[in-house]
Amino acid sequence: MKRPWQGQIERPPEENVPRHEPTNPLCPGSRRANGEVNPKYESTFMFDNDYPALQPDAPDPGPGDHPLFQAKAAKGVCKVMCFHPWSDITLPLMQLSEIKTVIDRWAELIEELGPKYPWVQIFENKGAMMGCSNPHPHCQVWASSFLPNEPDLADGHQRAHWKTHGEVMLVEYARQEAVRKERVVVENEHWLVVVPYWASWPFQTMLLPRRHVLRLSDLTAQEREALASIMKMLLTKYDNLFEVSFPYSMGWHGAPTGPYLQEDMSHWQLHAHYYPPLLRSASVRKFMVGYEMLALEQRDLTPEQAAERLRNLPEVHYKDKAK
Amino acid sequence: MKRPWQGQIERPPEENVPRHEPTNPLCPGSRRANGEVNPKYESTFMFDNDYPALQPDAPDPGPGDHPLFQAKAAKGVCKVMCFHPWSDITLPLMQLSEIKTVIDRWAELIEELGPKYPWVQIFENKGAMMGCSNPHPHCQVWASSFLPNEPDLADGHQRAHWKTHGEVMLVEYARQEAVRKERVVVENEHWLVVVPYWASWPFQTMLLPRRHVLRLSDLTAQEREALASIMKMLLTKYDNLFEVSFPYSMGWHGAPTGPYLQEDMSHWQLHAHYYPPLLRSASVRKFMVGYEMLALEQRDLTPEQAAERLRNLPEVHYKDKAK
Ligand SMILES: O=P(O)(O)O[C@H]1O[C@H](CO)[C@@H](O)[C@H](O)[C@H]1O
Ligand SMILES: O=P(O)(O)O[C@H]1O[C@H](CO)[C@@H](O)[C@H](O)[C@H]1O
Repeated sequence: MKRPWQGQIERPPEENVPRHEPTNPLCPGSRRANGEVNPKYESTFMFDNDYPALQPDAPDPGPGDHPLFQAKAAKGVCKVMCFHPWSDITLPLMQLSEIKTVIDRWAELIEELGPKYPWVQIFENKGAMMGCSNPHPHCQVWASSFLPNEPDLADGHQRAHWKTHGEVMLVEYARQEAVRKERVVVENEHWLVVVPYWASWPFQTMLLPRRHVLRLSDLTAQEREALASIMKMLLTKYDNLFEVSFPYSMGWHGAPTGPYLQEDMSHWQLHAHYYPPLLRSASVRKFMVGYEMLALEQRDLTPEQAAERLRNLPEVHYKDKAK
Repeated sequence: MKRPWQGQIERPPEENVPRHEPTNPLCPGSRRANGEVNPKYESTFMFDNDYPALQPDAPDPGPGDHPLFQAKAAKGVCKVMCFHPWSDITLPLMQLSEIKTVIDRWAELIEELGPKYPWVQIFENKGAMMGCSNPHPHCQVWASSFLPNEPDLADGHQRAHWKTHGEVMLVEYARQEAVRKERVVVENEHWLVVVPYWASWPFQTMLLPRRHVLRLSDLTAQEREALASIMKMLLTKYDNLFEVSFPYSMGWHGAPTGPYLQEDMSHWQLHAHYYPPLLRSASVRKFMVGYEMLALEQRDLTPEQAAERLRNLPEVHYKDKAK
């Protein structure tokens, strides 16, 4: 962290996004690539991704002719969900009731797609730096016919811990962090946000319920309200860190669905990961390159340092303060 | 790949790098951050990284008080190696004999640091997009007191294959690819470059010897000459793809060293990975974000498509052709 930075400088995010842009396919009333016209929606809005990476009818490649050359069809669906009718708003600046609606829609997605697909990945890429090409606030859902690598590892590790220690790993982890405090960023009655002990992105966080919860759809109304509140607090702190709309990728991991709905999945604990790319300022990012790709993540600051910085930031958004 | 790209556009790499810049700490005769003055080197030049991520005397954190909170000291050394005295040259534009010298230095590094450290990671971050902050052609070496995650996985998988199938996985893999041809980018008597069957970066490649070789230091003089030649060809094709100095991170994986020098490591096969970030053009990259971070890499083009494009590119560098 002491090295003077002479490398790539990121452009600041566009600050003058118009509230409504008729040519933006995510706006209410716009025409999308497939010719459909969006409703004049006033809350959230969900539609099938016009450029889906997963399709329900992907052809099966058939058995390989050699043990080292094996492939399988990846079937699934991809959806997009707009959080709000305005393009110039982001989650931390939305009302609590509006964030609560987003959470309810997420839970419905698990209920709707869960019975058919083993994995329903809800994720948000925010900011151009994170590959997001549309400033309109939105997330994506990719549901798949298989357990992708990361959830598969998460399932294996949680299962092994459950077998060996007879406890739910992430429930115990959250309990420990709540006592230790040094990595806690923000907490309320139902939820806890920590910079995880193993964090590799500088301001990476993990959002966990205190109660043992398998899936988003299992959250009570109070837990959803408390979730809206803690999300607003975390994302406000993120924006306040460098006084910029903070880029990140985030997503939910809960117990697998599909055939797993019939199994005891008690080793799972619902959680969200936030992976923000920024390191030193709004324009100097962390590069996960050479050593990271080939060997191991190099940590530029400790989780305790990151948590302390985030914890000490105001809970009022810098844009609300300016008003 | 069909979606019109409206997202982040990368800046083209600096084309007018001066050959010699007295304030650049990597140039011959320059003063570095620690006050030392570089020799007026005429070939390669190696020095200790002035901002090392690993240090030989890192303090031991001691045993943790809980099974979920366990840490260990990461000890090691970090070095930088300049490939050439000029700042305005890159490997594909260097003479074969100059590339051969780089390879000899790499082999010496394994011999020098190997006895002391279990893992010697040689890697190159090329281009600002890959976190490189100095245009002068150089690579890095981080030697560590432990096996980092990626080599640890590579060791485990190769060992398991060796036990189960009684063959060296990557020797068999290269043999298969050499017959199948569809993923081969370039090959010569001693080496093979393929877009691996499992590639996740669009133009990712793997460089493998045909003979069973454990470490860089085991390469014969002929193999080193053939390596210089195939590196020049691969990197020329990379530059020719979008007619730009192609960014990437690359690095070598060979059998672990340190205490492993005493063990039978026959399950290992030496290889290099190249991970380039570009996808559609010199200014549109692949983003490894949301779904990739939380679930699984989404492949934007198939390894066969990527290999075919690279294979069909000229073996003369676009800058040499222009002359
Ligand atoms: O070593 P450098 O050039 O200071 O830094 C670069 O390479 C390192 C090793 O891959 C990364 O950890 C850094 O994020 C990157 O900027
Ligand atoms: O889905 P989008 O917005 O087209 O694309 C974005 O998110 C995807 C899922 O994380 C990534 O694979 C793409 O690289 C990224 O640009």
